[in-house]
Amino acid sequence: MLRMSTLLLRTLRDDPADAEVASHRLLVRAGYVRRVAAGVYSWLPLGYITFRNIERVVREEMDAAGFQEVHFPSLLPREPYEATNRWSEYGPDLFRLKDRKGNDYLLGPTHEEMFTLMVKGEFSSYKDLPLSIYQIQTKFRDEPRPRSGIIRGREFVMKDSYSFDLDDAGLEVSYQKHRDAYVKTFNRLHLNFNIVSAMSGAMGGSKSEEFLAPCPTGEDTYVLCNKCGFAANVEAMVTATQPYTGSAPAAMEIFDSPNTPTIDSLVDLYNKKFGESVSASATLKNVLVMVDDVATAILVPGDREVDLKRVGANLPGAKDVRLFEDEDFQNFPGLVKGYVGPQDAKKLGLKVYADPRVVIGSHWITGANAKDKHIRFVTHGRDFSVDGFVEAAEVKAGDACPECSTPVVIDRAIEIGHIFQLGRKYAEALGLSVLDQNGKSQVVTMGSYGIGVSRAVAAIAEQTHDEIGLNWPQEIAPADIHLVAAGKEDELYNFADKLGKDLETKGLRVLFDDRRDASPGVKFKDAELIGIPFIVIVGKSLADGKVEFRVRKSGDKSELSANNAAEEIFAAVRK
Amino acid sequence: MLRMSTLLLRTLRDDPADAEVASHRLLVRAGYVRRVAAGVYSWLPLGYITFRNIERVVREEMDAAGFQEVHFPSLLPREPYEATNRWSEYGPDLFRLKDRKGNDYLLGPTHEEMFTLMVKGEFSSYKDLPLSIYQIQTKFRDEPRPRSGIIRGREFVMKDSYSFDLDDAGLEVSYQKHRDAYVKTFNRLHLNFNIVSAMSGAMGGSKSEEFLAPCPTGEDTYVLCNKCGFAANVEAMVTATQPYTGSAPAAMEIFDSPNTPTIDSLVDLYNKKFGESVSASATLKNVLVMVDDVATAILVPGDREVDLKRVGANLPGAKDVRLFEDEDFQNFPGLVKGYVGPQDAKKLGLKVYADPRVVIGSHWITGANAKDKHIRFVTHGRDFSVDGFVEAAEVKAGDACPECSTPVVIDRAIEIGHIFQLGRKYAEALGLSVLDQNGKSQVVTMGSYGIGVSRAVAAIAEQTHDEIGLNWPQEIAPADIHLVAAGKEDELYNFADKLGKDLETKGLRVLFDDRRDASPGVKFKDAELIGIPFIVIVGKSLADGKVEFRVRKSGDKSELSANNAAEEIFAAVRK
Repeated sequence: MLRMSTLLLRTLRDDPADAEVASHRLLVRAGYVRRVAAGVYSWLPLGYITFRNIERVVREEMDAAGFQEVHFPSLLPREPYEATNRWSEYGPDLFRLKDRKGNDYLLGPTHEEMFTLMVKGEFSSYKDLPLSIYQIQTKFRDEPRPRSGIIRGREFVMKDSYSFDLDDAGLEVSYQKHRDAYVKTFNRLHLNFNIVSAMSGAMGGSKSEEFLAPCPTGEDTYVLCNKCGFAANVEAMVTATQPYTGSAPAAMEIFDSPNTPTIDSLVDLYNKKFGESVSASATLKNVLVMVDDVATAILVPGDREVDLKRVGANLPGAKDVRLFEDEDFQNFPGLVKGYVGPQDAKKLGLKVYADPRVVIGSHWITGANAKDKHIRFVTHGRDFSVDGFVEAAEVKAGDACPECSTPVVIDRAIEIGHIFQLGRKYAEALGLSVLDQNGKSQVVTMGSYGIGVSRAVAAIAEQTHDEIGLNWPQEIAPADIHLVAAGKEDELYNFADKLGKDLETKGLRVLFDDRRDASPGVKFKDAELIGIPFIVIVGKSLADGKVEFRVRKSGDKSELSANNAAEEIFAAVRK
Repeated sequence: MLRMSTLLLRTLRDDPADAEVASHRLLVRAGYVRRVAAGVYSWLPLGYITFRNIERVVREEMDAAGFQEVHFPSLLPREPYEATNRWSEYGPDLFRLKDRKGNDYLLGPTHEEMFTLMVKGEFSSYKDLPLSIYQIQTKFRDEPRPRSGIIRGREFVMKDSYSFDLDDAGLEVSYQKHRDAYVKTFNRLHLNFNIVSAMSGAMGGSKSEEFLAPCPTGEDTYVLCNKCGFAANVEAMVTATQPYTGSAPAAMEIFDSPNTPTIDSLVDLYNKKFGESVSASATLKNVLVMVDDVATAILVPGDREVDLKRVGANLPGAKDVRLFEDEDFQNFPGLVKGYVGPQDAKKLGLKVYADPRVVIGSHWITGANAKDKHIRFVTHGRDFSVDGFVEAAEVKAGDACPECSTPVVIDRAIEIGHIFQLGRKYAEALGLSVLDQNGKSQVVTMGSYGIGVSRAVAAIAEQTHDEIGLNWPQEIAPADIHLVAAGKEDELYNFADKLGKDLETKGLRVLFDDRRDASPGVKFKDAELIGIPFIVIVGKSLADGKVEFRVRKSGDKSELSANNAAEEIFAAVRK
């Protein structure tokens, strides 16, 4: 029985100054966590019990799926991370240090290399596969903007798994097993979540999905179709397009367009000049970017902005995508800033990628590659061609769902899990091969799967709290029952003490507010803040043979017979 | 059920090249741990199960004692360690690093500062005390010589507790509670151990004891009295002395002593010159040392060496003790190297400390502070005095037990736990005070208590292994039963599989060697190496309705009825 008279716990009346999100505010106020440094937190007793409850659920589900638990150090030598190029690719997010002999080490931000090497060290035959192994371990990432308390910290606990298979079909099976295990895990954690298509991005690989817990203050933005359930993160949203069905336009025609610094001013001039009523979507923006070292025009309709993250995630092989700067224009003197059009791209030395909305046959008002001049009827396939299509335009609420064409919504969420098919990148870099059935060496294919264990504490808090405090699902809560002795008389405390022991005998976990120097009002407020699912109050009505039973979530109150309180509480709680 | 056909486990025939001690050799060969870097190890599945079993025992005993679990980060800011001076005092053992903004961090080698600050942040009254809190957490120390596998690593797991009390009497109670909890913990871990008086040394503080697990290859040397049970580490060994009872000697007398570079040659010359038969113990060595910045002579009988660690640990306030170097002699031109005697100490500008054997009234042959001259009848209290006594002479087997005078033995061991009374050092440095009963601010007094959790895996392996492999106590072992299907026939595997499931239904943990491509001989060797306490073999004799049951430790074998095997095994294992 946890006793508040001796528990290392002080609740706070006021919100911490640096807390922007509810979970951060409440976990600090309710005495679950304390800040040590930016993005670095300590766990107080109630917080650590909660954390360990979540860790236990995760471990049980991983074990139930047949994954084997291993454990790696945090302090890792540089060499394997050199072999995969991540020592430098990781940039300033990686904590690097030297030992007393001057050797380079890093603090593991994720353990692909180590898992690959472990399997390489032990296994050598196709008979040893498939294999899925996991660890629950502390990770370190020097986030540029650690925030939201334990949601985005610099030291945090992750469950990371890796699967090892001989071929793609095997990887598909392992991936699905993890996906199923994650669904079970998050259901047991009482998290509301969507499984969202994701780009695997910098990690290299193919199929990838994120488990996102919707939350108004979440960092992740994603697209959701409330009709068919389609969900994708913004990078992975696919534009629904339809073939061009209009008539073929007239030949290209240049027109004067002075003083049109914006799309709106161009549209105004155009409509006046030609007596039409087109909108911005009839114009074509040529957004100039450097894709690694290649000057590239990204074509999007004039009513859309380019989303560079979407471009980067969807242009195969692209590592760095950035907007043109003044120096870049100096390298391409043929480009007239503000008047670029794709019809002269080859001459100008540009690669061209189009947003899928720029369908073949469509015609556009665009720059004439000459100062103060635009051009109309510029037709895709007739007057210009592209090096490829790329998902480039920013995603907006109301865009058509690619699966059922219903307008999508854009929602915010916390990423609580991520699964993806890594493929052979790490196995190739580190030489993990096995002999196949024919005695031939085959590079192993891998999957990578992560759950934010410490983050899940905050995600659950975000989804379950209300305006008065935390509000835990029972399996996650630091106790089943918050037992309050409300008053000054010894009898109350003696009765409550005995009741707490009886409840513990029945297998319930009890937090007993046995403080003599706190008023009933303070105790009730603390119980609401701490968020244990059931509250039992031993107070004045004990004289009438009653104790009070409250359900934290619903606020329902009922009176129980004091004589039979343990049995009645047990029945209410376990029902 | 763990199945060896799919378990991430490969046993090794050969000892790893860098393994000096049995636990290291066997934990690597049996597939429990793998080296990642010097002093940095990964845990394979069997190893991690074993580790977690130990962790569970430790946690249960801490919780049972009423200590509250918290958890700190590993990545710690510099400031609190500056306040206690440990940022610099720790020297190169501390892993230091900078974050992306250039701020200094360290990887926690121990968490006194953080625990102190946590309590300071929450508590402010004597009513909040006593408090004992603990964590089980990964620690980092850049050991100069990481060795013996996981016994002395650079990343390892410790349980560290701290107690907080208002006064010394309270600290004494908290200390005793931890001591009792440690005894229970190590008993449950089946560790054979001695509780040994220790000096708290660099940590500052008073009472201190170590829990040492005797082991012939252990790093720690300690003194043990096999009669009365007295045990102390070498620094804490107390010299048993008796008052001088001889007659008063004649006045001091100088004599020529050329060509006496050693004690032996001095004794030879003396005995020849004076027709006596004294031994080296009649001479007095004046070992010159610098204690921080003070030139000091340490007096020990000529048959003893000075143990500088003992001097450092026993001279109050001494931080650095080192032997005189040539430059030091230049600063004290009156000192004649090889001929120093305490009778002129004041004149020579020396402090003098004597080993307790140099009792008041005793007289000595020593240097005459002149080249080629010694002096006899130099009497303590008459001809020289000392600034104090200090335990200075090296401890030898056969020295008298300070409690019962029996000759002691010197034994080797692994340190598995350490408890000590920290006192107010950290609370003072970091400003941890509470208001006492009279509303007066009082600095809190602390205790500090550690158990090496990952090290305990190795310590148990050291004490329980035999020449053929590991040999775990049942509660610690990665399984209760090592079930071997020995042969090629499907019936053996089917029967064993069913038997394994039946045993699991009864609550036993089973490791099933279901490998089809391993011979019975290989399987038996692996079972011996892996060290699970009970081995069940389903082999040829199954045709006669029998399975074999072996006790790993004793080697006892018996035959069980196959029909009733699960029941008989259960009875044998739980008896």
